[in-house]
Amino acid sequence: MRVLVTGAAGFLGRHVANHLLTQGHAVTGFDLARGGHPDIRWIQGDLGDFGSVDAAVVGHDVICHIGAVGDVYLAAEQPELAARANVVGCAHIGRAGASHRARVVYASTWEVYGSPRYEPIDEDHPCDPDHPYSITKLAGERMLIAADRLHDVPVLALRLGTSYGSGLRPNSVFRIFIDKARRGDPITIQGDGAQGRQFTHASDIARAFVLACTSDLRRRTLNIVAPVTISIKELAEAVVARYPTELSFGSPRPGDVAPALVSAERAAHELGWRAEMDFESGFSELMDAH
Amino acid sequence: MRVLVTGAAGFLGRHVANHLLTQGHAVTGFDLARGGHPDIRWIQGDLGDFGSVDAAVVGHDVICHIGAVGDVYLAAEQPELAARANVVGCAHIGRAGASHRARVVYASTWEVYGSPRYEPIDEDHPCDPDHPYSITKLAGERMLIAADRLHDVPVLALRLGTSYGSGLRPNSVFRIFIDKARRGDPITIQGDGAQGRQFTHASDIARAFVLACTSDLRRRTLNIVAPVTISIKELAEAVVARYPTELSFGSPRPGDVAPALVSAERAAHELGWRAEMDFESGFSELMDAH
Repeated sequence: MRVLVTGAAGFLGRHVANHLLTQGHAVTGFDLARGGHPDIRWIQGDLGDFGSVDAAVVGHDVICHIGAVGDVYLAAEQPELAARANVVGCAHIGRAGASHRARVVYASTWEVYGSPRYEPIDEDHPCDPDHPYSITKLAGERMLIAADRLHDVPVLALRLGTSYGSGLRPNSVFRIFIDKARRGDPITIQGDGAQGRQFTHASDIARAFVLACTSDLRRRTLNIVAPVTISIKELAEAVVARYPTELSFGSPRPGDVAPALVSAERAAHELGWRAEMDFESGFSELMDAH
Repeated sequence: MRVLVTGAAGFLGRHVANHLLTQGHAVTGFDLARGGHPDIRWIQGDLGDFGSVDAAVVGHDVICHIGAVGDVYLAAEQPELAARANVVGCAHIGRAGASHRARVVYASTWEVYGSPRYEPIDEDHPCDPDHPYSITKLAGERMLIAADRLHDVPVLALRLGTSYGSGLRPNSVFRIFIDKARRGDPITIQGDGAQGRQFTHASDIARAFVLACTSDLRRRTLNIVAPVTISIKELAEAVVARYPTELSFGSPRPGDVAPALVSAERAAHELGWRAEMDFESGFSELMDAH
């Protein structure tokens, strides 16, 4: 298949593009940033500009739409930037997908659910996000599903767990902890560290994208979330076990998302996807990569 | 109070601006279109351009944020336009409101709820919109409520019923029926006409905005919907009773929103608002105005 990966210069985009290559697909990367990979055709462009999105989609069977303002702190500070990239961007992707008969696989997030009304959260759980990042990611998801219904572009949205793996953004909690510990600086946990995340390895997420590219599922959402919850405190302790340093607790950071238990059972049944990387192995791999 | 009304050249914006004037408030209109009203200062500007929004907000106590892509058919055809005006626009309004300490009263819509999970729908009902219009209106509402929480700008969102009154858009169902009947052309109902709407008169909506401007309620949503449901068939029959013409039935229009019974009890208790215009009077007034 010929697959366009938006956000291909970002953490998840790179993992998805690389995994598509190993599976024998032809990959084009699309990103604001310039990229360099010998096996990937690269298009530098802006999701907010329909002309560049439309031109990029020509000749592709599938769009893995991963490009977004994915930094929650940036989204809180500049919500208009998140709205433009994440909502207008999805509208552009939906329109270009419809024009050029390309299927869309969208990188949504478990954070669209908001506070749990029941747990574990399945895909029928109401969505009530309260942060500019998750609000705009959900609106983008819905714009794409609406494009499927109104303009007949097949759309499958993957609601991804908090991802980790090599090449994480410097302001992710993993990188902050690891970078501080390696310098011997103290690690400060915001809040009591009891809140957990179902950290999902980028290799598992990349596998889900490849399955989704070749699936016929459409007009649907699927949770792509690893089953085990790791608390922030456990994460910090694992880092400190590798690079001993002081561990302290600070006040919670405003806008941090409360934890919720999310089920990926539907993805197992319908897409044949299960997380394969256990946290210990994924964490060791990440530490070794640094 | 000094009130900025966005979308002041539109149907609802005009009603709200006029009612604010009669209540002794100083009104500034903001719209893409040029406007003309001797008692209203006018600023021509674009919600998608932060500079023009920010400059317009200076010196106002309240923003009645009504400007939007409000035409559902336009939103379906050009979802990126709806995303820009309705989501990026709200992000700009929230940011400007925070900068200049202005309260925001937002024109949301009952259509944000999507298919009812229970009826009557109150403000705690989950929101699951599926059309680019309602998706972007809800995202805008949530961006503003998030701005209240993150940046301390007081926001009250009014989820308005389907509005009617003098000056309706030519492609509203009222105007289409009335204009056809007056010309003696047949009226075609899309579907069986059994679907109803809680048509809410613009004068009642304008009253709700004025109450909301002077209220302290914030970080909240309130349904502003008249209690009586009128079916499309009843509406058509009322028009035909005034201007006799042929009445026929066609296939449903894709993207039309299914009806749902919405309760405005909370607005009665918390804002002291109830619809005062009964449909017969409002309809007669509208017919006389044409």
